[in-house]
This record gives sequence, structure tokens and C-alpha cells, in this order.
Amino acid sequence: MNKLVSSIKQAILDSGLRDGMTVSFHHHLRNGDYVLNMVMDAIAELKIKELTVNASSLFDTHRPLKEHIKNGVVTTIQTDYMSGELGRFISAGNMVNPVQFRTHGGRPCDIENGKTPIDVAFIAAPASDPMGNCTGKIGSSACGSLGYAIPDAKYARYVVVITDELKPYPLIDWSIPETDVDAVVTVDSIGDPNGIVSGTTKITRDPVGLSMAMTAVDVIRASGLLKDGFSFQTGAGGASLAAAKFLKDVMLQERIHGSFGLGGITGYMVDMLNEGCFESLMDVQCFDLKAVESIRSNPRHREISATHYASPGARSATVDSLDVVILGATQIDTDFNINVHTDSNGQIMGGSGGHSDTAAGAKLAMIIAPLSRARLPIVTDRVTCISTPGSTIDVLVTQKGVAVNPRNFELKDRLVSAGIKVLDICELKEIAERTTGVPGKPALGERIVANVIYRDGTVIDTIREVREDV
Amino acid sequence: MNKLVSSIKQAILDSGLRDGMTVSFHHHLRNGDYVLNMVMDAIAELKIKELTVNASSLFDTHRPLKEHIKNGVVTTIQTDYMSGELGRFISAGNMVNPVQFRTHGGRPCDIENGKTPIDVAFIAAPASDPMGNCTGKIGSSACGSLGYAIPDAKYARYVVVITDELKPYPLIDWSIPETDVDAVVTVDSIGDPNGIVSGTTKITRDPVGLSMAMTAVDVIRASGLLKDGFSFQTGAGGASLAAAKFLKDVMLQERIHGSFGLGGITGYMVDMLNEGCFESLMDVQCFDLKAVESIRSNPRHREISATHYASPGARSATVDSLDVVILGATQIDTDFNINVHTDSNGQIMGGSGGHSDTAAGAKLAMIIAPLSRARLPIVTDRVTCISTPGSTIDVLVTQKGVAVNPRNFELKDRLVSAGIKVLDICELKEIAERTTGVPGKPALGERIVANVIYRDGTVIDTIREVREDV
Repeated sequence: MNKLVSSIKQAILDSGLRDGMTVSFHHHLRNGDYVLNMVMDAIAELKIKELTVNASSLFDTHRPLKEHIKNGVVTTIQTDYMSGELGRFISAGNMVNPVQFRTHGGRPCDIENGKTPIDVAFIAAPASDPMGNCTGKIGSSACGSLGYAIPDAKYARYVVVITDELKPYPLIDWSIPETDVDAVVTVDSIGDPNGIVSGTTKITRDPVGLSMAMTAVDVIRASGLLKDGFSFQTGAGGASLAAAKFLKDVMLQERIHGSFGLGGITGYMVDMLNEGCFESLMDVQCFDLKAVESIRSNPRHREISATHYASPGARSATVDSLDVVILGATQIDTDFNINVHTDSNGQIMGGSGGHSDTAAGAKLAMIIAPLSRARLPIVTDRVTCISTPGSTIDVLVTQKGVAVNPRNFELKDRLVSAGIKVLDICELKEIAERTTGVPGKPALGERIVANVIYRDGTVIDTIREVREDV
Repeated sequence: MNKLVSSIKQAILDSGLRDGMTVSFHHHLRNGDYVLNMVMDAIAELKIKELTVNASSLFDTHRPLKEHIKNGVVTTIQTDYMSGELGRFISAGNMVNPVQFRTHGGRPCDIENGKTPIDVAFIAAPASDPMGNCTGKIGSSACGSLGYAIPDAKYARYVVVITDELKPYPLIDWSIPETDVDAVVTVDSIGDPNGIVSGTTKITRDPVGLSMAMTAVDVIRASGLLKDGFSFQTGAGGASLAAAKFLKDVMLQERIHGSFGLGGITGYMVDMLNEGCFESLMDVQCFDLKAVESIRSNPRHREISATHYASPGARSATVDSLDVVILGATQIDTDFNINVHTDSNGQIMGGSGGHSDTAAGAKLAMIIAPLSRARLPIVTDRVTCISTPGSTIDVLVTQKGVAVNPRNFELKDRLVSAGIKVLDICELKEIAERTTGVPGKPALGERIVANVIYRDGTVIDTIREVREDV
């Protein structure tokens, strides 16, 4: 007895997938993923229609979804992030039902509590045994952690593992156990390794970025949180990585032994683990080859599920114990609300991911952003889209100074005492506008193309149609 | 923020436990467990009554349950195994509601499907962090795997971790993640290390046992299953361990590379792993110190949940991929039905544990038993209690010969061809009765004191009151 099925199409037939149901996907293969497109093409060939696609994130490689939307195969999208190509398509009003944006913590929460039930989950697995014990740590398409896929596998009515590397039973280092898997399909390739992980992620060389990174580390030191037991998350952007690098130097110099690094993990965080800055890494997604190698071989580098990472429905998640997170923003307003969903034209080009979750959990939620990008100011009166509420953001670091959320007056005192240049966020807005001018408002229609669902389940904002490409 | 609570009593109050609810416990601390008694005493002091106790197994150390039953604190017991002292108490008719016996696979299945919902699960954890990430692998009360506790933690309405070793956050080698835990209580000691695991488990020196063990290995060789990829489970009884030892010698001599060893794990199975007989061990419970040390340090020795071990509700469990299991019996009848629940007087002194699950899953389910014990025959016309249906048993090995279930005629041919002495099971019964005589029937009353619930949810047999102590 085993669960091997001859083709994706056969697995879809076996699953009982019918019109109007929900299929799910995870995004650990990122822009190298072949699986979502292969499955959706097979579904289209089977003439199944009006599906909801629940994907933890969607990338440009998933552009064939546009055709499936046009043809009525897909009528609803639930996701935590959507890159520019699909984003522009949605922003142009090409879909009847608004996209449901959630966060990386809200998504597993709603899968588990039954708000967004999954009929059939498709798990792209770099290695699996014939019973479905599967992992992302090994195989030619290795991507490391499969954290976002774990709740899908646990709660979907039917679970199909799709792999390009079949291993003998039992594959012991499973991310997802056979107990959750109905069928296993082998294919030639589940993804393009060049798109799955970057060879290396690199810190910025831009002097503005470096200057912000240094200030970020000054802020962390001044906050009083940088001491033994310190925990930290940062993104894969150039300035965030530079901050991690500078932070590492400080921690080594001052012999500070942190507890854990969290999140999407890069080689810089692996270096921090290996050099003793952290006791462990808690990894929901690997961003580069060094992270994949580390999670495979270092037992202190642990895979965590999306639930364990950030679910507000869990009895607790790792974000709840996080000291400091460094986050980016496309816009921040004078109430510290953050937009990471739309660009300056109001077009969708992102999503929360773990932004809101870590901001809500961390003791210090820091935004790093230059005052302007492409001659547009980052600080504004009111963000076009609220992705993360300002009440959860503590501090904005720019190249011209730092603004502290007035709610966190203790932090402001600490920064001022440490000699850090603290400005009111309105002053930063004015400085930006002095060079960029006050930007016009994007040309938005009335029609709602997406709802931004905060991690507590409330619709925190809506995204409207963009009427013309500015 | 953390989940530390000052006392067990406070945790019970916080949990909202009320009359008529269900509490659960796991048995990895075996006869050394202090936690069940501490919790039940606290519940009794809080004057909460009419509870259901769902415990994966109950040992003699849990004898205070008798008082809680008499006082009405406990009115229903659900368990997979009950040792003699409580068993005699139940068999004497001291409880109004029949005990519900399940199997180690049926228990997690019914917890997950909602047939036996748990209100409050109490997890005895040899180490935990303040958020409830906990493990059995480390700590002064280390017991190794916490496999049976994993479904309780996942599905209970409220989960209390009780530990005597608090570790800094995050404890990374969790068996149960913080996502499932509501409260953490520290106590002086969760158990007596001498009762938790035996220092070493030892093979039999009894010549009858050794002879059966050698025959068992002959049967396995003749079955055709002993080849590369072979998988195996055996118990901790003396003859079963001897069979493992002899099997290891054969596998090493013939350079057979098996895939996995399964089950409750002893040092003998660890030796087989370390000497190359298996690629991995899949461990739902550690029986001795060597197994605990191995699961802590050897990544090829993996902890599995009770669901992953044996649940018939899972999409598959490890037992479904098992080649050979060696099991014991207190009685076997001429239809190959097995009794492991009651002794010759009909008194409860055991339970299925994983007996039925592994018998159903394994390609070859073998019973090792001497023809008689304490002058009573083991083979009988009809077992006093059907624990495991004969349809799932392939072969009985005794010191006087081997009987093959007629359903498995291919196996019989193989054994005969290999020169193994194969008898009809009725012949074995007659040989036994020639020395022991035909035993009298136990003196049973009409009242049902326990129901034996097979892994498919059906009541496979009932256990009746024993009217006098013979």
C-alpha cells in the first residue's frame, strides 16, 4: 500500500474537487514555483470552475492565474502577498470578487478556525516518501522550511503532495507527516532552483541604506532590549540585512548572547547563530541557500509552522516572545500606519506577509525606510492602504532622523538620552516633501478590488481599482 | 507575558473545569508518574465531581484513583491499558460506568474525531519553557518520547503543562509546541525516575523463552519479509527482546539493511539502529534509559505522535507500513483471537496498548507465548476477552511448535518448506491441556465492568464482573 498517484490530474479527480471549492498552495518555492501553475492548468483542463485559490503568497511566475481568472476557473483569491504583475491585473479591476488579503498569522488562524476551509491542499515538496512524509530540506528543489504549508496539510479535507524526489519510506525528517497526506504525485520538476532561493542575499552598498542600518542598531541598543536573551527578526531587504550585520558586530563585541532569531531566515541570520549571537533560529521560510543548508544540518536551526510563527489563534506564537523586528514600508503616515500592499499609484504590489503579525508581537517594531523613493515621499498624511496599524509600530528610522510613536514615550526618552536624533514624524514628512513636493493622490475608482483583513479578522482597509495607469 | 501559573490548583481553576467534564493524562512516566495523582487530588480538593479520566494507560501507582472513584470524583475511565491493582478494583464491580478500553491508535482517533473530547489535558513534561514548548527528552525526569500526549495537547480545549524543569524560551526540541499550551505549572518533581524507565530491559534467560525466540526468528526468515527495507516492532517482554537480539545477529550476518524499527523502543532496538540493522527508529514511547539517551542524541531516532504511530483515522500511520510485529498474549483461542485484557480469573490486568493496531497493520503479526503459565493453558477454545481479533493474527509461536492462521496459507507453506514444525492450533491446545488439564471457567457475574472498543470504533467484547476472587 502506498499513496502514489499517476498524475496531478488523477490526484485532482481522486480528491473529489468540484466547482466552487477551495484549493490551497504555499510559497516556499517563491518565484521558482512550478506547482501552482501545473495544478491550475490541470484543473482548467478538467473544466472545474469558480474555485477559490488560497495561496500563502503569489509571485510573478504565477501570471497564468490571470487566464484562469478570465476563464472563470478562479473566482476568488485569498493570499498574504501578491507581486506586481498579478497585482496590476487585480488593480485594473479584472476580477469580480475582491482579493482577500490576510497575514501570515491570520491565514493559518482562519484555516484552523474554519473561516477559510480548504478542500484540497497541494503541497510542493522537495522530497517525499510514498506515504507522504515530506520535507523541504533535501532534494534538488530544496527550499528549507515548509512552515506555511503545515496548517494547509493539517486542516485540508484532501491533501496532495507533489514532489520531484521520491525517497524510501520512512522519510524521517518530515515537515508534514503521512498522517495528513492523501496522495503523492511525482513530477519531473517542482520548480526552478534559481527562483526558489537566491544564491546569496546581499546587504546594501547604498550609503543611505547603510546610514539607516547604523541608526537602526543605535536605536536597538538604546531601547534597552539588547541584552542576554535578546530575540530578533529582520527582512531580506538590503538595509535590513545591513542592520543585521551591524547588530551582529555589536553583539559579538559586547558579548551579548541572544535567545532566538525568527522569521524568514537569510544567511546573515545563520551567521549570527553560528557565531553565538543566538541560541537558535526559528524558521518559517528560508530565503537563501545558506539558510537551506543550515536548517538541514544544524539542529539549533528549527522549522516552525505558520501557526507557531504568528497565528493569533494559537495559545501563543513565537512573535509574541519577540523583542525586536525590523520592517520595511512603501508608505508610513503621521499616525504610523504602514502600507506594504500598494505602490504610489495605488496598484497592488505586495502584502502583509508577517508584517502585521511581528509588529503586533514584538516589543520594538521598527520601520526602516528612506524619506523618499523615486521622487515620492515615504512619509505621508495618510497611507493609501493600511496594512499594519500605527498602534503596533514603535519607531521609524530614516536617513534624516528617527520618529518615535508618541504612544511609546519611554522609548523616545531612551533614544534622546542616547543622543539619537529624534524628530516628530510630521517634521520628517515636511523634510521629505521639501525635496519631492506633495504628491498627487492616485486615481482610484469606487470599486473595491481587495480587502485587507487584519490578523484579528477585521477588515482594516480596502483597496480600490486604479482607473488609469499613471 | 508567559503562561506560568502558581499551582496545579490554580491551573485547574483557570481551565474552567467543572462537574462532568473530561480530563486527560499520558503514561510516558509509567509507574513513576506523580502527575495524575497530584492533579486528581487537587481536583478532589476543589470538589469537582463526576469527571471522565481519559488516560493513555494506568499503572499501579495510580491506585489513589480508587478513592476518587468511590468518592464520585471520577465516574468514567477511558484508557488503553490498566495494570493489576486498578484492574482488580474495576473487576470487582466498584465502578458504575464500564471502563472504555481503546487501543493506542483508537484513542487519538476518537480524540481527533470528537467522540471523546477532552476538556483539560494535563501534560507531564520533563522539560518546558515558560510558553509551553515542552519535551520528554531532557530533564531529571526524562522519559524520551511524549508521543501519546501529542493528540491530547492538539485537541483538548485547555492544556496544562506540568514540569519539574523550566528551560529558557524557546525550548527548541519541543514534542508539543506552545501553540497548543494554555498554562505551565512547575512542581518539585513530576515522577520517580526509577519508575519512569527501567535502567535496562533484559532478555529472558529462561530456556523456554529462548527457544521460542529462536523459533520466532526462524519464522521471520522463512516468511520472506526479512530483506533490505525490513521493518519491525517488538515488545519489552523477555522473549520478545530475545527475539530482537537473535534477529539482530541474523541481520548482521546476512547484511540485511532494514528500514525502521517501531513502537515502544528498548535499548535492544537502539543497538539494532546503531549497528546498521535499521535506517531509523520511530518511537512513540521509550522503555529504558538507553532509548531515552538515543532519542535525545541520535537524529535517526525519531519521536512520533500516537496518531502517526497507529491511528486508524489518520490518512496513514506507521503501523500500516510495518512488516513484522512480535506480540504477547495471556490467552489465544483456536480462532487466533487474543486476550491481553484479563487474567485467567477474568480479572482486568492489561489492555490492548498497540496490540490490535500493530496486528492490523503488520504484514506478519506474530504471537509468542508459552503453551502454559502457572499451570494454565494459553491456547483455549475461546478467549475470555477478545482484545485483538484472530483475523489480524498470522502465527503463534510456542515452545512446542508453531500454528499458522489458516487465512494465511501462503505463510504456512513457507514455514513448512523451511522445516519449521507447524501444527494445527487445536493440536497445540491439546498438548497444553495434556499437562494442565482443561481449566474451569472464571466465575463471572452479569454486570459489564468494561467495554473493549476495537480500533474501528466497534465494541469487540465486554468484560464482566468477577464475582469472587478465585
